[in-house]
Amino acid sequence: MSELSGPVEVVGAGLLGTSIGLACRRAGLEVLLSDTSPEHVRTASGLGAGRARRAGDRPQLVVVAVPPDHLGAEIVRALEGTDAVVTDVGSVKTGPLAAVVGRPGAERYVGSHPMAGSERSGPLAGSAALFDGRPWAITPHEGSAADAVALVEALVAVCGAVPVRLSPAEHDRAVARTSHVPHLLASLVAARLAEAPSGHLALTGQGVRDVTRVAAGDPVLYGQIVTANADAVLALLGEVRTQLETLIDVVATADRGGLEALLREGVAGTRAIPGKHGAPLPPTRSVFVSVPDHPGELARLFADAGASGVNIEDVHIDHDPGRPVGLVELLVEESRAEHLLGSLESRGWVTHR
Amino acid sequence: MSELSGPVEVVGAGLLGTSIGLACRRAGLEVLLSDTSPEHVRTASGLGAGRARRAGDRPQLVVVAVPPDHLGAEIVRALEGTDAVVTDVGSVKTGPLAAVVGRPGAERYVGSHPMAGSERSGPLAGSAALFDGRPWAITPHEGSAADAVALVEALVAVCGAVPVRLSPAEHDRAVARTSHVPHLLASLVAARLAEAPSGHLALTGQGVRDVTRVAAGDPVLYGQIVTANADAVLALLGEVRTQLETLIDVVATADRGGLEALLREGVAGTRAIPGKHGAPLPPTRSVFVSVPDHPGELARLFADAGASGVNIEDVHIDHDPGRPVGLVELLVEESRAEHLLGSLESRGWVTHR
Repeated sequence: MSELSGPVEVVGAGLLGTSIGLACRRAGLEVLLSDTSPEHVRTASGLGAGRARRAGDRPQLVVVAVPPDHLGAEIVRALEGTDAVVTDVGSVKTGPLAAVVGRPGAERYVGSHPMAGSERSGPLAGSAALFDGRPWAITPHEGSAADAVALVEALVAVCGAVPVRLSPAEHDRAVARTSHVPHLLASLVAARLAEAPSGHLALTGQGVRDVTRVAAGDPVLYGQIVTANADAVLALLGEVRTQLETLIDVVATADRGGLEALLREGVAGTRAIPGKHGAPLPPTRSVFVSVPDHPGELARLFADAGASGVNIEDVHIDHDPGRPVGLVELLVEESRAEHLLGSLESRGWVTHR
Repeated sequence: MSELSGPVEVVGAGLLGTSIGLACRRAGLEVLLSDTSPEHVRTASGLGAGRARRAGDRPQLVVVAVPPDHLGAEIVRALEGTDAVVTDVGSVKTGPLAAVVGRPGAERYVGSHPMAGSERSGPLAGSAALFDGRPWAITPHEGSAADAVALVEALVAVCGAVPVRLSPAEHDRAVARTSHVPHLLASLVAARLAEAPSGHLALTGQGVRDVTRVAAGDPVLYGQIVTANADAVLALLGEVRTQLETLIDVVATADRGGLEALLREGVAGTRAIPGKHGAPLPPTRSVFVSVPDHPGELARLFADAGASGVNIEDVHIDHDPGRPVGLVELLVEESRAEHLLGSLESRGWVTHR
C-alpha cells in the first residue's frame, strides 16, 4: 500500500468531506479544504477538519466530495490542476468516470464510495467516526495506476472503513439494487399514504413506518443520484414492473400458490442480507419488553439488559408520544435470548415471548 | 357502554387469542378457551389465559381469533351455537362479514382488528400487555346492534387498546394502504436482493434493511390476508403500477423535475403518518452517537441519556457483529436535541451533529 503522507485536499466541505478531513487530521495528515461556500470551509476548518487551500499547495491526494451533478467536472479540474491522485465519494461511479476517461491524468483517478451518511448534511454533521467499520467501495477503472489505487485504499484505512473492491459498473448495479430502487419503491408506497382518506392513517403500524422511512430523504439529492444511475435503476425497475404485473395477476385470480411463491422470494431476500463485513449473521431472535414512557425507564431496561451480559444487536421502539407504555424490541443472538428474557423477568420487566 | 361481565370465549388460542384471554383474566373476567389444537388450549390455560370451554358454558362475548381462511365459518358457528355477541380479530373485515349477513344472529356480530402482533406466533408469544395503547379497529356493519358494538368497545378497553371506529369496507381499504400493499412492495424489493450477484450485497446499508424488514413475515399467513382483501389491494396496486410507469418514464427520459415531483410525494407521505392516537407528532431530530460494541456500553449510553432528562422517542442501531463501534441514532423531540447532545458530550460520548 502506498504511503499516505498528505497533504489531502478535500473539495466540498459538506458532511462527507468534513468527516474525511476530520479522520485525516486525526491521523496527523495535513488537510486542505475548498468549497464554493467559504462559510463551509470556515466551519469545517473550525471543527478541525483542515485549513483552507491556498495557491501553491501541492496535495498528494484530492478527494472530491461534491453533489452528483458536479462530480465529473470537479474530478477533471483536480486532475488538470494538480499531479495528485484523485478520488471522489459520489453515490454513482460510471458517470464521473466517463468524464475522465481519455483525458490526461486519467490513470491518477480511482473512484470510491463510502457507505455512510446521515439524514443531516453540511459540515456541522461531520465526524471523524462517520466511516468506522462501514463498507467503502473502491472502484478502479481499467487505466487506474496501481499506486493510485493503493493510495485510495490507504485513505479508506485512515477513515477506519472496510474496503470493498468493485468495478465502477458493478458498483452502480449493486447500489441500484441495495439503495436506489429500494428508495424509489419506498417513495411509491409513501406517496399512497399522502393520498389516504382522512382517518385511514389511524391504523398505521410499525411495518409501514419502516418501509417508508428512507422516502423522507432530500428529493433533489436523490433525483441527482437516480438520474446519474439511470441504466442500472431502469434495469431493476423493469424487473419490478414484471413482478408487479405477476403480483397483480395472482391476486386478481386468487392464485394462492403464485402469491405465496412471490412472498417467499421476499423472505429469501431478507435472508440474503449479509453482515457488512460479508460474514454470515448469526441467527437472531426478538425479545419484546413493555417499557413505561418516561425518561429513565429505557435507561433502566438497558442497564438491566447490560447486566445480563447479552449483547443487543438492534433495538426497535414502537412508541408514540402520549402513550403510557412502549413496546421495545431487543434483537439478540438466538442462543442468548432465553437468558436475557429470564434475566429481565427476574428484574420485574414485562416481557412478551 | 354495555357491561362486560363475562364469560368471554376465545376461539383460537394463538398469539392474539391468548393475549386477549390474558387481558380479560387480568380484569377478573372468566375466559373460555377453544382451539383445534388441544395443546394450544393447555398452553394458553397454563399461562393463565382462561380454562378450556365445556359443554353448557354460556359466553357473553365470543372472540374469534383464527387464521383468515377460517374466520367466516367460525363466526357463523359462534352465532349459531350461542346467544352471545360475537367479534373477530382478523386482518380483513368485509370477507367474514359476507359470511354472516342475512343469517340469524347477524345483529350480534361486530368485527374488530387490533393493530398489534409479533414476528412470533402461538400462545407462548401471548401477553396481556400486547394491546397496550395500540389502535384497535371496531367495524360494525349496518345491522350490528348498538349494545353489541358497546360490548366490543368494552373488550377493547379491557385490553388497554385505543378504539378506532370504521366501516368494514373502509377498514379494508385503510389496511390495504397502511399494511398489505407496503408488505407486498417490500417483498418485491427484497426479492431483488435474493437475485443479487455475489458480492453486491456487501454494499447493503440500513435503508434497504428497513424497507425489506416486513417482507420476512410468514408467506402463508400474508397470502391469506392479501387474498381476503384482494379488491382493496388491487385498487392500490393499480395506482402503484401507474406511478411505476411514470417513474420508469421520468428516469428513462432524464426528466429531473418529474422525478423530483415523485420523490416529493413520497416525502409528503412520510410526513402524513400520524401518532397512533391521531395526535400530530412533535418535530423530532436524530442524535447520532458512536458506541463500542460490547455489553454494557449501550446501557451506559441510555443511563447517560436518561440522566439528561430527555425522552427517547425511537432508537436505531447500525450495528454488525464483529464491528468494533456501532452508530446509535436517538430520535428525540427537536427542542431537546441540543440539550441531549451537550449532556452526552459532557459525559465523553462521541456524537455526530
